[in-house]
Parts: sequence; C-alpha cells; structure tokens
Amino acid sequence: MSFDWLNQPAHSINHSAQTAAAARQMQLTKPPGALGQLEALAIRLAGLQGRECPTLEAIKIHLFAADHGSAASGVSPYPQAVTAQMVSNFALGGAAISVLARQHNADLKITCLGTVAPLEQGLDNVIDAFIAPQTRSFTEAPAMTRAQLQLAIDAGKSAVDEQGSTDLFIGGEMGIGNTTSAAAIVAVLLEQPVATVVGPGAGLNESGVDRKARYIEKALRLHQPQLTDPLSVLQCLGGFEIAALVGAYVRAAQRGITVLVDGYICSAAALVAMRINPSISDWLVLSHRSAEPGFKAVESQFCAPALFDLGLRLGEGSGAALAIPLLRSACQLHQDMATFAQAGVATKEE
Amino acid sequence: MSFDWLNQPAHSINHSAQTAAAARQMQLTKPPGALGQLEALAIRLAGLQGRECPTLEAIKIHLFAADHGSAASGVSPYPQAVTAQMVSNFALGGAAISVLARQHNADLKITCLGTVAPLEQGLDNVIDAFIAPQTRSFTEAPAMTRAQLQLAIDAGKSAVDEQGSTDLFIGGEMGIGNTTSAAAIVAVLLEQPVATVVGPGAGLNESGVDRKARYIEKALRLHQPQLTDPLSVLQCLGGFEIAALVGAYVRAAQRGITVLVDGYICSAAALVAMRINPSISDWLVLSHRSAEPGFKAVESQFCAPALFDLGLRLGEGSGAALAIPLLRSACQLHQDMATFAQAGVATKEE
Repeated sequence: MSFDWLNQPAHSINHSAQTAAAARQMQLTKPPGALGQLEALAIRLAGLQGRECPTLEAIKIHLFAADHGSAASGVSPYPQAVTAQMVSNFALGGAAISVLARQHNADLKITCLGTVAPLEQGLDNVIDAFIAPQTRSFTEAPAMTRAQLQLAIDAGKSAVDEQGSTDLFIGGEMGIGNTTSAAAIVAVLLEQPVATVVGPGAGLNESGVDRKARYIEKALRLHQPQLTDPLSVLQCLGGFEIAALVGAYVRAAQRGITVLVDGYICSAAALVAMRINPSISDWLVLSHRSAEPGFKAVESQFCAPALFDLGLRLGEGSGAALAIPLLRSACQLHQDMATFAQAGVATKEE
Repeated sequence: MSFDWLNQPAHSINHSAQTAAAARQMQLTKPPGALGQLEALAIRLAGLQGRECPTLEAIKIHLFAADHGSAASGVSPYPQAVTAQMVSNFALGGAAISVLARQHNADLKITCLGTVAPLEQGLDNVIDAFIAPQTRSFTEAPAMTRAQLQLAIDAGKSAVDEQGSTDLFIGGEMGIGNTTSAAAIVAVLLEQPVATVVGPGAGLNESGVDRKARYIEKALRLHQPQLTDPLSVLQCLGGFEIAALVGAYVRAAQRGITVLVDGYICSAAALVAMRINPSISDWLVLSHRSAEPGFKAVESQFCAPALFDLGLRLGEGSGAALAIPLLRSACQLHQDMATFAQAGVATKEE
C-alpha cells in the first residue's frame, strides 16, 4: 500500500510564457489593469499551459459521490438515499451540474465510491468504484480504514489519468452529510474553532447547525492523537468522495492540468491536497465563494481569492462550472484584443 | 422640444409569471436557495419577460461614444483622440467589448455623438449621430445646451427603437474624461462629498484624482442653482453618451426589454434615468461592481446588488457582457433542471 505518488512534484510553471503574457496584456487596447482579475487569470493560465495565449477548449467535469456515516446523526436535512438518486440525476441530465456542463460544452463523468441506496444500473458516464455503502460515523471510529483511503484516493487519480487531452479539470462532489466532514477537516488543518467553520450546508436550521458542531467537536476529541498529518486527518474525518478529490487534484497538478476548484467541500479537499503536496497550489484556481461560513478561512490558503460570490451552496462542482465562461473570456480577451499598435490607438500620456 | 416621453411608465411586470417561476424553483432538484442569486435572477427575469421560463437568445449591445470638454483639464491620462480611435477598434473587432460580443453571440452597434478627432468613415455598425465635437467644459458652462441634451437622449431612444426582438439590452460607453462627468452626477444626485465618489478612472495617479475632485467641486459651485432636477443635472454635468444611455434605458424599460447595466458611467446614467422615471428601476439589472470608489453609493439605488466584482474599470459595457453567461445559466438551470418528482429524488425531511 503506497501513497508515495502523492508527493511527486507538480508540473512546473512556464515562467517565460507568463512573462510574455504579462507583456502582452500591457499592449492590449485598454488602460493597464482595467480588466482586473481577468488579466491576472490570463497571465496565470499562460504560465500553467506554457504558452503566451492559453486556451480552454477541452473541459472535464468529474463528480465523486459517496455516503457518510455521519448522516445518520442528523447533520443533514436530507435522507442518505438522495446521494444515489442524485447520481442518476447527474447522469440523466437533470441536475444543475448537468445543465451547466451542456451549456459550456464540458465533458461530465461521475465516479461513485459507495452509497447506502443501490446505484441505478446502466447509466452512461457513471463509474462504479464501490468501496463501502458509507464511511463510518467518525464520532465512533476513523471514517475509513487506511486501505479504503487508498482506494478512494486512487479512484480520483484514475479519473484524471483516464482523461484525454484536458485544458481544465473541475472536480465536484455529492454526499449527504459531507459539509460536516469538510468542516471537521477545515477546523483541524486551519486550527479554527468548530463553531466558526460550521454552517447550514444543504439547509439546516440553527439548532441543526449546533448539533453538527457538537458532533464534530466529539469527533475531534476522539481522534485528537491521530490528527498529526493530512492523510490521517482525511482518513479519520473525510469522506470517500473527498479523498477521491484529493487524489484527483494532486494528479491533475502533476500532469500539468489546471484545476478549477468549486465551493466548501472541494476547497477542503484542495486544502488537504496542498498540505500533502504544497507544490500543487499554483494549479488550483478557486472559482466561487461558498456561502458556508468556514469557506473564508480556506480561501486564504489559495494563491488568489475566489472570482465571484453568488451565495451558492449547492456543490456538484456547480460554482466552478459557472466560472468557466469567465476563464474563457480571460483567454479570449488576451488572445483576440487588438494591441495599441494594431488598432492605431494612442497610449497613456506621460 | 419635448422630453415628455421620458415620463411614460415602464412596461408592467408580470407577477403571475414571477410567482410561477418562484414555485418552479422550489421543485428543482437542489436544496431551496442553493443556487443563490441565480434563483432570484431567474424569478426576476420571469416577471420581466412575462413567462415562467425566461430565455436570453437575442442580446443587443449598443455603445455610445462622445468627447468631453473636461478632458482638456487633465482629468484623464489619455488624449481625446482615443475616443474616435476606439470607435474604430469597436467596429473592427479589436476592443474588449468586441471580443466579448463575439464570444456570447451578441449583436454590437455603436452610436457616435461627436468626437474631437474625425471618425473613420465606412465602418460597419457605426451610426454617426454627430451633435458637436465635444461637450463644453462644465467648469465654464453647462456641458450641453437643452437642444443638444434632447438630441443625445433621442439618439439613445432610437438605438432601442430600431432594434428588432431583444431579450436583453446592454448599453456601453466610450468617452475620454467621462468618469469625471459620472462622478459629478453621482455627487449631486446622491448628495455625496465629491472626494468620496472620485477615483482613478482610466488610471490617474493620486494628484490627478485630487485635480479631478477640485474640477468637479468648481463645476458644482458654478451650476448649483440649476441642479434642481435630473434633466438639468444631466445637461450641466453629463456627456452626450451619458445622455444617450439615459434615453436608451428609459426606452428599453418602456418597451419591456430587460437592461443589463455596466459599471460606473452606465450606472450613473441609470441613476439619472431612475430619477427621471422611477418606474423603470425593475428593468435595470446591475452586472458588476466597478472599481471606482463612487460606485458603492450608486449600487444601493438598484433593486439588487451587482453580480460580481472582478476589479474591472474598463467601461465599453464590458462588465455587463461578462455577466451574460451567468444570466443565461440562471435561465437554463431554471428551465432544464429536473424537478424532484421527475428525477425521483427525495426532498428535505421535516
């Protein structure tokens, strides 16, 4: 059993492409900096893709679904059956992420790592990578065994390895109860009080949020001695889908694929991934600001802040998918705008 | 000479379509509210378009360009010649807004109301509606005569009247020096100290911003007795392109066309339009949060806050154009997501 591959360095950044892109931005027919974060994005993507003018054609969205033992403890207002039901909805085109993938011409696949309700058979684009019906309730035991952790991480790695040419990778997740897992991970890795990182998730009321916080505090007391490294935190407090995201993020960065990170659960997975392998952080572009209160602490761990805040708290990779056109605009403006010289436009007076 | 048409009421909102859309949102396979501002947008557009499922196919972007007498006073780091040069750049496809219009399959037209440098002839999609080479410097006289004001407002009305079927109208502007005009208008209409609404515009340094503020303060002292109604404020402190935007916004709302409002200058124009005719405010959807410091005060005058903040300060309607896919996503999610019943997904446990 080996996690060694996780430590291999990320693909290197092409600094000369980045420098060329920064110089190009200064020549485009607009005041310097007038396109705000879109300029920084174009320059960043140039460094990641290794070309002065980056492009975003082939976009892969890969969702990971799994059930959580904690869900039986009232940490979510939805029954666990919803996880498997939503896998069908993803595959059949009715979920938010399915609609957004079609709108933006992105490829959508789902890996299912284990659900309490049986998975519908014969669904296109669904990979059955069953580990167990659910994680264990982490107030009683580690959420998963070391062997299960490896299976889940490897499923994420495989999702990236099996892709063809990819300009942008979006990971998404589905798992009733998984904001509890994300909040627990964030509390430990960022040393935050539980109460500050716990939120309503899919719609808990105030007393539900309190119950969720107490549940996490109980788990942290139980696992305290083991929570010494990011893999152990993931094993004790994670979910299969969160572990798969960790594997996918690390692998994408190693393969030189830019990652667009979705909201709270995905950014908690990205946090674990960056703690395991700090070299990958350049490759993780944050998309939107989740409405979960714990998100702010996580956001500060990324190279750049989120692009927008629309009050989203859906998951599924939906916030990242909504950001696709902004990234495409950044690339198209960078490539297609005329320079001052081309357009015969006067520059700033000194 | 008549401005009477400006006071005709906006097209009415269809409240039953809005109610139906709100009910539909509750049935879609997501926790209620999980799509944040996109849900509110879909419901709002349903009321504006008068159908439960609104669509955004035909999008018209219309830019208005004109020069400002104030530009000779060092309120912009760019020479006035840039206004006419950028009109060519818009028409020939090299400007930011040209790239974004192509990306989002929107129609782009430009009305030029008068520039100091001669306009390039024979440009497609450019309407020459010459009023004067520039407004007068408003520290010396009203920026325009009453007759010029009417010509400019009517040019905006015509831009909307001459459109075919339109699901969304975006106005944009170009005019070296026009953040000075916008800041002056905002200071008067919102009774804000000049220093709080003046910013770097296209890139002034700190002393330039101070000079701009003193220039505006001088103008406000001169015109004080006349600044008693929004049309007079527009005449004394506006630009031809700002007046045209006012006409276009009012006319679009009267015709029942949803308007997506760009940054600082456009929102200042929208503010004038709403002060002239408050019934139009439902029709004005704010797109992005301009980087100009005066924008915050204006934002509070709209029905809903801006959708995103990317640090943009370009104008041209570019921030509104960047928001097009978010509005389209709001509509497509609203229309194409499965309901809980359709997808066989369990709802929240009570």
